[in-house]
Amino acid sequence: MTESDASEVARAVGEKLTALDDMIPSLGITLDEIRPGYARMSMDVRNDMVGPHGVCRGFHLFALGDMASGFACCSWNRNAVAQRTDVFFMSAVKLGDRLSVEAAETSTVGRNAVYDVRIVNQGGNTVTLFRCQCRLLDGPVVENLPMLRQDSAQPRQRISFN
Amino acid sequence: MTESDASEVARAVGEKLTALDDMIPSLGITLDEIRPGYARMSMDVRNDMVGPHGVCRGFHLFALGDMASGFACCSWNRNAVAQRTDVFFMSAVKLGDRLSVEAAETSTVGRNAVYDVRIVNQGGNTVTLFRCQCRLLDGPVVENLPMLRQDSAQPRQRISFN
Amino acid sequence: MTESDASEVARAVGEKLTALDDMIPSLGITLDEIRPGYARMSMDVRNDMVGPHGVCRGFHLFALGDMASGFACCSWNRNAVAQRTDVFFMSAVKLGDRLSVEAAETSTVGRNAVYDVRIVNQGGNTVTLFRCQCRLLDGPVVENLPMLRQDSAQPRQRISFN
Amino acid sequence: MTESDASEVARAVGEKLTALDDMIPSLGITLDEIRPGYARMSMDVRNDMVGPHGVCRGFHLFALGDMASGFACCSWNRNAVAQRTDVFFMSAVKLGDRLSVEAAETSTVGRNAVYDVRIVNQGGNTVTLFRCQCRLLDGPVVENLPMLRQDSAQPRQRISFN
Repeated sequence: MTESDASEVARAVGEKLTALDDMIPSLGITLDEIRPGYARMSMDVRNDMVGPHGVCRGFHLFALGDMASGFACCSWNRNAVAQRTDVFFMSAVKLGDRLSVEAAETSTVGRNAVYDVRIVNQGGNTVTLFRCQCRLLDGPVVENLPMLRQDSAQPRQRISFN
Repeated sequence: MTESDASEVARAVGEKLTALDDMIPSLGITLDEIRPGYARMSMDVRNDMVGPHGVCRGFHLFALGDMASGFACCSWNRNAVAQRTDVFFMSAVKLGDRLSVEAAETSTVGRNAVYDVRIVNQGGNTVTLFRCQCRLLDGPVVENLPMLRQDSAQPRQRISFN
Repeated sequence: MTESDASEVARAVGEKLTALDDMIPSLGITLDEIRPGYARMSMDVRNDMVGPHGVCRGFHLFALGDMASGFACCSWNRNAVAQRTDVFFMSAVKLGDRLSVEAAETSTVGRNAVYDVRIVNQGGNTVTLFRCQCRLLDGPVVENLPMLRQDSAQPRQRISFN
Repeated sequence: MTESDASEVARAVGEKLTALDDMIPSLGITLDEIRPGYARMSMDVRNDMVGPHGVCRGFHLFALGDMASGFACCSWNRNAVAQRTDVFFMSAVKLGDRLSVEAAETSTVGRNAVYDVRIVNQGGNTVTLFRCQCRLLDGPVVENLPMLRQDSAQPRQRISFN
């Protein structure tokens, strides 16, 4: 498969996920770019995302990062779920901030994939860092397109104390 | 201050935060119990919390856990923000599940407080684990009540390589 | 199986692991208690554990916590490995400190087990917190004793976007 | 200060830390490269680093990653300590493996610096990923050289619930 075919598959995954998930329009998230192992999105911080402490709520930042890592990890046209995520809130996000997020694959072994996510504001400052451990599942996102990442044939790890 | 006075302060914090945050009614979260260093809440998984994969979104589980740890950490009537959170999605959550969450303080040193959060479903199974690192800030949540945890007098840590 | 039989199995696992691992005497670690899902150990901070900054190295604290979570997780007489660990260094540890560590199971789903570990000093202050994600493997630690935790029959998680 | 001056400072820090820390020769670690915000090291997996399960112990991998992030973070000639580390053991490491580690700064805000560390084996496979949250302290590592990163003038974060 050529690189441009792979990008086609990733785009088809992005289109399907965007069409299916009503949280994307509901949060005003736009998918700006998707290719195998990578997604880029943006979101404006609205009034309803700001908590009583006057800054953007952690879970709206989580929503944006989680969406980006989900799209990036599924971009191979293989189902996956987030298993464990380390979220670092680096600095406060304000009403009206324009956030951009990038998610990219850092490493994959067997069914474990690590995606790193960075959310930056309009000034280019990093406001949130994610490290998401995804678990690859069986089955494609888009049925009639090839899975770019096959089921791993890796045998289960065995150790013995002798 | 007696234990019952401290509980009064925690309840006043809980009432103020509940009144201020419109995400609480919006997500259907109820505050079931609050005392110094502890909060318990519940939430039903509604149709709009379920993603296109048929299970509850990480975002909504994060929102519930984050809300609980925020209330628990602020229960001393001292402002705090989440700095870094480790979220473990243990098992899938379905439409109609009734979730209960407990947040409790595990340890505090200086301005760092660690709150552990567990979300369980109606069957008592753990579905999500949080470990939230909170940063204690200056100032109370409720102005006219005592802060149960004072500003740490701890000097900044110093090391030297000699 | 009675509780006392289960404790016998756990103790046999503890004895085998202690006998096999020369890092335990090398670090001066003693196993103080072991039962299914739990281990308690202690260690004195020696001169060779203190780095050039004058405090105990993270490496030696990690070794103690990792040893405790490994023993606790294997106490069911089932092999396991650490997959991902969140380590929080709460406060500095000094030469001569007497450290005690407890590791206990927080939750298990399928082949994922979460063990929480707390290291305290002689004054009872928490110095290090671990959250260890263990992966359960096939096979027992001690061959001729029963495995207290069987291989999970849980089917692999499946999701589909329809 | 020119880039080459900054590299000089980083190298002087690397030399001082190497000279002071007897764990470096003891573990057979070599410092292969250091510049502001970055360090690269290597280590061979010896017999005494392999546990009774036949694979390299987690804490020897931790030692290598922790050393690399410590050098990278101190390379600005400013003292720092690790506060919280997320360690992901991606795949098993065997006796005789030649490990190479890179640590690089991902983001810094105020006194919080995030360093990402990747350990790869001789085949180029990622075996361990670290995300280290470092806390910047006062004072230089090498007294008579400039600190490349000054004390942050950033005021403490304040929020208020009104």
